[in-house]
Amino acid sequence: GLRVAAAASASSSGAAAEDSSAMEELATEKEAEESHRQDSVSLLTFILLLTLTILTIWLFKHRRVRFLHETGLAMIYGLIVGVILRYGTPATSGRDKSLSCTQEDRAFSTLLVNVSGKFFEYTLKGEISPGKINSVEQNDMLRKVTFDPEVFFNILLPPIIFHAGYSLKKRHFFRNLGSILAYAFLGTAVSCFIIGNLMYGVVKLMKIMGQLSDKFYYTDCLFFGAIISATDPVTVLAIFNELHADVDLYALLFGESVLNDAVAIVLSSSIVAYQPAGLNTHAFDAAAFFKSVGIFLGIFSGSFTMGAVTGVVTALVTKFTKLHCFPLLETALFFLMSWSTFLLAEACGFTGVVAVLFCGITQAHYTYNNLSVESRSRTKQLFEVLHFLAENFIFSYMGLALFTFQKHVFSPIFIIGAFVAIFLGRAAHIYPLSFFLNLGRRHKIGWNFQHMMMFSGLRGAMAFALAIRDTASYARQMMFTTTLLIVFFTVWIIGGGTTPMLSWLNIRVGVEEPSEEDQNEHHWQYFRVGVDPDQDPPPNNDSFQVLQGDGPDSARGNRTKQESAWIFRLWYSFDHNYLKPILTHSGPPLTTTLPAWCGLLARCLTSPQVYDNQEPLREEDSDFILTEGDLTLTYGDSTVTANGSSSSHTASTSLEGSRRTKSGSEEVLERDLGMGDQKVSSRGTRLVFPLEDNA
Amino acid sequence: GLRVAAAASASSSGAAAEDSSAMEELATEKEAEESHRQDSVSLLTFILLLTLTILTIWLFKHRRVRFLHETGLAMIYGLIVGVILRYGTPATSGRDKSLSCTQEDRAFSTLLVNVSGKFFEYTLKGEISPGKINSVEQNDMLRKVTFDPEVFFNILLPPIIFHAGYSLKKRHFFRNLGSILAYAFLGTAVSCFIIGNLMYGVVKLMKIMGQLSDKFYYTDCLFFGAIISATDPVTVLAIFNELHADVDLYALLFGESVLNDAVAIVLSSSIVAYQPAGLNTHAFDAAAFFKSVGIFLGIFSGSFTMGAVTGVVTALVTKFTKLHCFPLLETALFFLMSWSTFLLAEACGFTGVVAVLFCGITQAHYTYNNLSVESRSRTKQLFEVLHFLAENFIFSYMGLALFTFQKHVFSPIFIIGAFVAIFLGRAAHIYPLSFFLNLGRRHKIGWNFQHMMMFSGLRGAMAFALAIRDTASYARQMMFTTTLLIVFFTVWIIGGGTTPMLSWLNIRVGVEEPSEEDQNEHHWQYFRVGVDPDQDPPPNNDSFQVLQGDGPDSARGNRTKQESAWIFRLWYSFDHNYLKPILTHSGPPLTTTLPAWCGLLARCLTSPQVYDNQEPLREEDSDFILTEGDLTLTYGDSTVTANGSSSSHTASTSLEGSRRTKSGSEEVLERDLGMGDQKVSSRGTRLVFPLEDNA
Repeated sequence: GLRVAAAASASSSGAAAEDSSAMEELATEKEAEESHRQDSVSLLTFILLLTLTILTIWLFKHRRVRFLHETGLAMIYGLIVGVILRYGTPATSGRDKSLSCTQEDRAFSTLLVNVSGKFFEYTLKGEISPGKINSVEQNDMLRKVTFDPEVFFNILLPPIIFHAGYSLKKRHFFRNLGSILAYAFLGTAVSCFIIGNLMYGVVKLMKIMGQLSDKFYYTDCLFFGAIISATDPVTVLAIFNELHADVDLYALLFGESVLNDAVAIVLSSSIVAYQPAGLNTHAFDAAAFFKSVGIFLGIFSGSFTMGAVTGVVTALVTKFTKLHCFPLLETALFFLMSWSTFLLAEACGFTGVVAVLFCGITQAHYTYNNLSVESRSRTKQLFEVLHFLAENFIFSYMGLALFTFQKHVFSPIFIIGAFVAIFLGRAAHIYPLSFFLNLGRRHKIGWNFQHMMMFSGLRGAMAFALAIRDTASYARQMMFTTTLLIVFFTVWIIGGGTTPMLSWLNIRVGVEEPSEEDQNEHHWQYFRVGVDPDQDPPPNNDSFQVLQGDGPDSARGNRTKQESAWIFRLWYSFDHNYLKPILTHSGPPLTTTLPAWCGLLARCLTSPQVYDNQEPLREEDSDFILTEGDLTLTYGDSTVTANGSSSSHTASTSLEGSRRTKSGSEEVLERDLGMGDQKVSSRGTRLVFPLEDNA
Repeated sequence: GLRVAAAASASSSGAAAEDSSAMEELATEKEAEESHRQDSVSLLTFILLLTLTILTIWLFKHRRVRFLHETGLAMIYGLIVGVILRYGTPATSGRDKSLSCTQEDRAFSTLLVNVSGKFFEYTLKGEISPGKINSVEQNDMLRKVTFDPEVFFNILLPPIIFHAGYSLKKRHFFRNLGSILAYAFLGTAVSCFIIGNLMYGVVKLMKIMGQLSDKFYYTDCLFFGAIISATDPVTVLAIFNELHADVDLYALLFGESVLNDAVAIVLSSSIVAYQPAGLNTHAFDAAAFFKSVGIFLGIFSGSFTMGAVTGVVTALVTKFTKLHCFPLLETALFFLMSWSTFLLAEACGFTGVVAVLFCGITQAHYTYNNLSVESRSRTKQLFEVLHFLAENFIFSYMGLALFTFQKHVFSPIFIIGAFVAIFLGRAAHIYPLSFFLNLGRRHKIGWNFQHMMMFSGLRGAMAFALAIRDTASYARQMMFTTTLLIVFFTVWIIGGGTTPMLSWLNIRVGVEEPSEEDQNEHHWQYFRVGVDPDQDPPPNNDSFQVLQGDGPDSARGNRTKQESAWIFRLWYSFDHNYLKPILTHSGPPLTTTLPAWCGLLARCLTSPQVYDNQEPLREEDSDFILTEGDLTLTYGDSTVTANGSSSSHTASTSLEGSRRTKSGSEEVLERDLGMGDQKVSSRGTRLVFPLEDNA
């Protein structure tokens, strides 16, 4: 049953029906125009905010300001604009706009309203707390700038994560894969559980103190733990990519943050999913927990597979069509296929973030080799620009949201409790996990790295996006406000404090910006990209010469050898002998690697470029998975270096030298390995590895 | 007063209040998840559609298919997917979703609904025709893919139009400026008036025949005339840019289409604006017409100024900050400033299309010179990709809309009438205007050009966007359906028929795609860009040598001289002596061009690069305004060509030769002029023109 009370001020005039209808049409037209103008203004606000941020970033770089990171800056500008919008814009008159119906059932997502025989459709915008009914209609502008969280997920996140995957230093990522998985999966779950329980204590305390006016269940606390446990790839990328900190530390932090997003998303949705089982208690039950773990593993592997599959499909398409004659088409296809990974994964109920990350890695490893020279630089630059814009947009928006979002619930006890819980939750997984990992790791995670990881628990855009997704209930609104404040705090304090902290903990960084006079743009580009796998070695692979591996090289080889599992070795030989030749124009011809009975298939799949050596070698990514380096040395203890390497090698040294502060001979050795790595993957040789030697 | 009838199927269960609330929360969560999934799927649909289109475009290019243009292809794919979505997807159950209220007042834009003490906000989606109430709730997917027309205006249009301005052949555009303005302004107004009147006749006929079930006023007819009169820059760009047809014809068609959008937008909004004056009659009155003309001129000049100002601001920012050390920041800034032009203009009530077009021209003329080498290619490539994606997206979407849009009103008489009216409307302005223009033009618009212009009355995305903006009333829905069909027809028939028509009318085209074997990418890039002003002359401006201008050159110079007005000459010298040095790093130092008493100001504004000649000359756009060529010759009848020009000149000839079919010596002469143009704008010389010689 329904009861409707009219609260509208409009009353139909006594004019003729035709006139009033025309007037109505006109009013609709005017309203549409006004709405269009407001849309323009709200978009314009963001664009001007970004422009201002860019100019200040330049000024900061120019004047070498260090105390505030650019993402923090974007947030400050967002805050200022938010204040202006909130208190500076005149309240638009709410007349003719509100109508209140009282309805005893639940809220429907769609409403059909019959106005003198015509039907109008309305859609649900959200709940409004009773005290704010009057303020809701007052400011259209605030409503316009508070846009759909879907935009974060579907539009802004994919380019950021894809760019991270596309420009990932695969060597360092895969070298630390075990530790990354441990921190990301176990660590986040531990942290979620600890934070959830601590917050439940806080909530109980608040109830005793009479500070809580609405329901707040145990599952709500766990949900909060899930959304706030995950460190944020966007923030970590923004801050550490800039600093060129130690690559292993960066790999650990970035790897953790990018994979624990998946954990956070999955945890939060599984917590919501098993609420029906504990409807009355909202308590935690073990069966549901294991169900969640199962769901999580399914979703994670599904996302991984989906990302890899889209990458492989793109590689096949770019290999077997002659699309590289049309760089524009090629770039557009590459962009669309990569973006579709994210959406496809989301549509199937998997995690888009994980899918698009692995898609990026696959694209860099295979598809990149098939692209035309122009498309390579185009795709990289396109994603770099999109990444930059999306990142700054998100941070500006977070700043803006503190004042423009209209449903904040500030609860000091909850906020303080959350800060403490986060600190404890992070401490409770970083130190124990590092201890256990160090038992198995050859290259130990030092105390300084552990402290840095403890310190760098940056929360950011992902937590924000998860929190803003549902702000219907009181508990969720309180969580959103708290999340926003935690993000502010971590970005400002931790973001600004990273440089001093790194130097205090004696962790090497390579922040050497070129002087203003040195305007060699390519050189600068080299700095900017930072984690770009493809630019590292200058291409000098015209002719080859086998050199005998010297002492330290072999020692290094033996050391790294033990770190890598036999599965990676197996994977590498499979990749080199079969996947590379099938998916790209490089690698040995399949006719030599496949058994004789699939000769026809092999001839079909092998690209003609593999046979004729006129075409320059397209294999350029030296930061290949760890085992590549080992194999070079395992394979008869010999490194293969370029013939004319002396001159180009010097060039690369001078470039790299300015990029990181060299830490003695090990750095040089590693670079030598890097050079060696690349050479060994020459075309036409089939690698056979002495697996029994290592396994 | 309000009367509400419940039509919802949901009824609250007898469970405890807490349980039901938890269930409700869960339902909201589930619904949000479902909605997120649907959003992903609808975006994914568009992305896969675009991917498919790209692959087929490649296939068409590869197999040299000519009968169907790629935009037509995108529409066909859109149509197919639309049919699948319409008839292939299962109707989602509408339960728990609809609630119908009967309300005797007008429809409000916001509804507040009170559900057991909680307030929910609803926003107006649109009107639903009574017969379709049941089908509305049935398919969420159809609703998801039918998205906000604002997206067209604010997101998809700006990159397309900006790219057009940024890569405009300024020489040809400004040479034909008078004719372009005549066709765009006068022609469109005439066409709008004729179509409006003819359609009023059709509507009267329909009323007599009893085919019209709802109101259709004279102003509605004029409105239809306004939205359908304008030819479309998106379609014209897509079809003619590809063909490399005669540059003057292209300039006329493109110029007309890009400027008459402004006319269409202004006409349509002024027709709506003066409806109140003729409330009872909905008739046309002369005073309102002249008021519209006034509004139009104000809006047009405002938009023009706004575009130019943002361009100038960007130029100043890029000149006086050292942003070019950071290509990423520079590119991002350039992108944001250019986009903000559009939004700024729309927010101020001007026309974003016109503003962004002139912003593009200004950016290409000034800012481009200040950008770093990397940013130049980045900006060009970024806008090229965005343009390509946006264009294909719009056409796919138009195809999709035919089946997914749920408020179509097909009226055969109206549709046939509209086709006839459009044909007559175009004939009634192209031929008379061309006749009058030819009286004044030195370079006549031939009969074949007139027929081609008559034939190329392509309607497209702009008409679609204007029509979809308001589909509330019956009349508007009929217009929308008709507009959609007209767009389909013109894109398929005219788009596909352009090539045969051009050859039938003996208009030269330069469609020479490189063979598959010729994979020189730069070469191909050269073809793709087509109207790129910056790549035309290979840069060979290291040293200069003055040669005596020979007979034919001077003759040509005298001929073009008469075409250009003195105002352009004045503008050019002002631009060269003052604007270029102020806004860019090129041109003569201001200290030499400004009077002595502003020496301090001049020193501040002149960039240091102007003084030292080490820096290579940044002036690269040879397709400068027409008068540049004249001035070269006027200025002592001498052309200036490069010293080592013989070799590079040959290279350029071979490139251009394959691009258009050469039409004898005039072509060669024009190219020589082009080379000469570029050289004369060297730094450090002040040009003083014998104005009295021409005026």
